[in-house]
Amino acid sequence: MRATVLQEAGRVRLTDVPDPVIRDPGDALVRVRLAAVCGSDLWPYRGQESFTPGDRMGHEWVGVVEEVGADVARVRPGDLVLAPFAFADGICRVCRDGLFTSCPDGGFWGGRNDGGQAEAVRVPFADGTLVPVRADADAALLRGLLPLTDVMATGVHATSLAGVRPGSTVVVLGDGAVGLCACLAARRAGAERIILVGRHPDRGDLARRMGATDVLAADDPAAVGLVREETGGGVPAVAECAGTQAALDLAIDLVRPGGTIGSVGVPNGVDRVDLYRLFRHNITLRAGVAPARRYLEPLLAEVLAGHLDPSPVFSAELPLDEVATAYRAMDTRQAVKIALRP
Amino acid sequence: MRATVLQEAGRVRLTDVPDPVIRDPGDALVRVRLAAVCGSDLWPYRGQESFTPGDRMGHEWVGVVEEVGADVARVRPGDLVLAPFAFADGICRVCRDGLFTSCPDGGFWGGRNDGGQAEAVRVPFADGTLVPVRADADAALLRGLLPLTDVMATGVHATSLAGVRPGSTVVVLGDGAVGLCACLAARRAGAERIILVGRHPDRGDLARRMGATDVLAADDPAAVGLVREETGGGVPAVAECAGTQAALDLAIDLVRPGGTIGSVGVPNGVDRVDLYRLFRHNITLRAGVAPARRYLEPLLAEVLAGHLDPSPVFSAELPLDEVATAYRAMDTRQAVKIALRP
Repeated sequence: MRATVLQEAGRVRLTDVPDPVIRDPGDALVRVRLAAVCGSDLWPYRGQESFTPGDRMGHEWVGVVEEVGADVARVRPGDLVLAPFAFADGICRVCRDGLFTSCPDGGFWGGRNDGGQAEAVRVPFADGTLVPVRADADAALLRGLLPLTDVMATGVHATSLAGVRPGSTVVVLGDGAVGLCACLAARRAGAERIILVGRHPDRGDLARRMGATDVLAADDPAAVGLVREETGGGVPAVAECAGTQAALDLAIDLVRPGGTIGSVGVPNGVDRVDLYRLFRHNITLRAGVAPARRYLEPLLAEVLAGHLDPSPVFSAELPLDEVATAYRAMDTRQAVKIALRP
Repeated sequence: MRATVLQEAGRVRLTDVPDPVIRDPGDALVRVRLAAVCGSDLWPYRGQESFTPGDRMGHEWVGVVEEVGADVARVRPGDLVLAPFAFADGICRVCRDGLFTSCPDGGFWGGRNDGGQAEAVRVPFADGTLVPVRADADAALLRGLLPLTDVMATGVHATSLAGVRPGSTVVVLGDGAVGLCACLAARRAGAERIILVGRHPDRGDLARRMGATDVLAADDPAAVGLVREETGGGVPAVAECAGTQAALDLAIDLVRPGGTIGSVGVPNGVDRVDLYRLFRHNITLRAGVAPARRYLEPLLAEVLAGHLDPSPVFSAELPLDEVATAYRAMDTRQAVKIALRP
């Protein structure tokens, strides 16, 4: 089969790899229907995160089960399934606590594991990991489901960590796919005012469509003052969806005494936290990779019912053959996010 | 009157200063009955925190009201009162939210404000700040009340931030007065296992008396492994009561995925937080100076009822004249904490 690998910084390639096979009775083999490129794929692509040449790529994908191991009970061949971006056994104490991403036996797609930007994936712990859709999905619905596997679940996690509630005012930092999904998540949680602070002025319309009530430019020196003034000294909740030092610093600037920062951006080069300010004003910092598996069922139900549609995060859908083009478009910020069709 | 000032690093002195006077109709003048030296007083004393020569010292004190301004309604001359280590107006939005230490008009005792290691103190916002004891207090009861003004309230804040509940297992980092009070607070909150990790092996008996069920040495390389092993991979709650880089690093090492660190030590030279580990395992960091005012009434009631007695944190009580001796004894760790009697 063909799978995307990172050959060197700036160069991904669709290449022939051995077909995946069932290795363990808990495994499933899934044929990928739709995959995506994630902002976090760009870190190794840009050489800003270590990788081994030949690493498999892609951790967002939906597909159809082709074969299952003897112990798999929850899915069967022919099922359309969602996979969160991390696999997990689903039965250990941390999984039962909902912390699937800390499962000691779990892992992430890509690297030495199979990646989702490929024709097929071997899924360890299929029963703990996969969620059957139990519905037919056309191309449009597939694009609505695919974000649940990462960016939409991560947006929900951000607003959950930040404590967004009905009537809340929240600042969302980052206008990438996660930040946009966090706006949608904040609206879904009943937030009244959703202030998106981003770096791409051309994404304002999209952001408003996804729930933002205010869109500010991160590089506008007046923006911070404006937020602080209009919110009476800062907001009670910040959803930090970028993972950069600048975003974390801005989050700490914008949160009010006693407020909470929910930080879901993969920390990239972040090595300072202004602990004194957190201490001085009793600010809670809740950083966390989204245990996406926890959110899949409720989000799936909402998408199937037509109450939730994160598909606007996709700027385009390309054939998997054009994966290199997809990375380039995202790297140059021409696209928010691109779906890939094997 | 006489008041303690910091003249240079390593040198505090009791010196004559102008008598405090009512400047504002909300002020009260309070004659100090008992004051204390705090671990955080040692930072400037050691030159590890900036100060201006002549800064007033002391933020833990109880006293008797001598005079009140025209607007003061909650206390009257003759009242024995507790003052939290920060004064606050008590009526603004942040105070109403219980965040007295972030009151924009508030401040801390000492420095250019009056300090508590003195014969008398001018108290701004007396109605928002002071809590009348409404009972007579002998010397022993005064020693039981004095810790409420800072270290006991801070211990309660630590366990509250860390989410300690009935049945919890908690690690307390730091065997100074705050750490010891955090043990007492954890017991009060119903914690089942209270593991104190400290640097002073001679404080073990005292720690057990104040609630610790296990006492480990911070410099014992096996201690971390032991805690992780006995608690199945780390504890759900850590009360960080030291404010050092080593303590914060240890807290992050010892907390389990999904757990919470409540950090109440004044951050001193802490400039790194392992954000990646927080992120990787959804660990919550809640750092915060204790809004002690919030806790005073309930703690006062418990002390008066005989259900709570933090007085064992005091190694000795000395006349205020001997304040320099008190600082030396605490600086050299011969004493946990010393009370000063004007």
